Amino acid sequence: MQKRDKISLSVIRRLPRYYRFLDDLRSNDILRISSRELSERMGITASQIRQDLNCFGEFGQQGYGYNVDLLYNEICKILGVEKGYKTIMIGAGNLGRAIATHMNFGRLGFNLIGIFDNNEYVIGKKLMGIEILPNENLESFCGEYNPTAAILCIPKDSAQEMCDQLIHFGIIGFWNFSHYDLGLLNPNIVVENVHLGDSLMILSYRMQKQMEDVK
Amino acid sequence: MQKRDKISLSVIRRLPRYYRFLDDLRSNDILRISSRELSERMGITASQIRQDLNCFGEFGQQGYGYNVDLLYNEICKILGVEKGYKTIMIGAGNLGRAIATHMNFGRLGFNLIGIFDNNEYVIGKKLMGIEILPNENLESFCGEYNPTAAILCIPKDSAQEMCDQLIHFGIIGFWNFSHYDLGLLNPNIVVENVHLGDSLMILSYRMQKQMEDVK
Repeated sequence: MQKRDKISLSVIRRLPRYYRFLDDLRSNDILRISSRELSERMGITASQIRQDLNCFGEFGQQGYGYNVDLLYNEICKILGVEKGYKTIMIGAGNLGRAIATHMNFGRLGFNLIGIFDNNEYVIGKKLMGIEILPNENLESFCGEYNPTAAILCIPKDSAQEMCDQLIHFGIIGFWNFSHYDLGLLNPNIVVENVHLGDSLMILSYRMQKQMEDVK
Repeated sequence: MQKRDKISLSVIRRLPRYYRFLDDLRSNDILRISSRELSERMGITASQIRQDLNCFGEFGQQGYGYNVDLLYNEICKILGVEKGYKTIMIGAGNLGRAIATHMNFGRLGFNLIGIFDNNEYVIGKKLMGIEILPNENLESFCGEYNPTAAILCIPKDSAQEMCDQLIHFGIIGFWNFSHYDLGLLNPNIVVENVHLGDSLMILSYRMQKQMEDVK
């Protein structure tokens, strides 16, 4: 734990994957696992695993493997999944509705407390038990409840303006689905841009390669 | 182009980002751009850009910058976005519906031709003009239309079994939203697993860091 400050973002980006595999092991009541076994399950080398996990303490014991619970709990702590950041969602169209219903926010460190849209056909309806409010209520809502994270499921054209407003209302973390790279102009916020199309284009590239290799 | 075979997957993974920025430049009728300008817009170093783009030919001219159209077209070719792979979607629940309506498949190299579900309440309904068919029709549909890509929007528990079936029916590319790491056991297929939760956990980590740094 004492080493935590020095962990590089590239190691951090692999942690959710460890989290998922360890979570699976726990549901199967597996208490210990060797780096070799974990390596086979995860499809990465055992030495990479040892290197990654050594970054944040001593969880392995020569010949006994890793203590699954300890490792899982430490990864949860590092990722901050117990924080429950108060979160609002902007945009309750198809994508917003899917994200709201599909994601288990509570387990991932977020607590969805408000949903906003400017479409009169969805305002007043409920989503996951939360009444959808008009965008004009954002300021008063943020003033009262102090959310710190926002999920943007709005079109590209309105993303930057909405982001600027939300920073002003106290939001510091953005999960952005708007097909627009937020954050480049704002060093004081943190943004995870989700570009679903990017992974689809990579799939296209890899399919092409695979077909050529088979020939 | 002649160099294409040697491009590493880490360069390839950056191409969709170039694609997006170049696409924006084209919509704004910008014909040429220097690596310095592109660097400022994209938030990566000019030398990284020169290195990446040199991997697949000569698009820059000293003092004149890059030809936006040429570069854009070459990236499209490398990624294979003109292929229009025949694609089916399995699972037309909240997430499947959002993906089907939200993504511009045609522009990204895919042609959605069939949607399947085993829920009697959605079978027969239309989504993006496509009638949702029962899963039991998959074999005959694949036999007739020969799709090569599948989008999985189904629960984790049924993902591996569905994948095995689809491989048997000729699918080689999977875009997988099922919270399960497909592909580890099947070296002959290509899989892009989309773990939305992973990016949310990274956001959580980075928010925590940001708040600590501000203190």
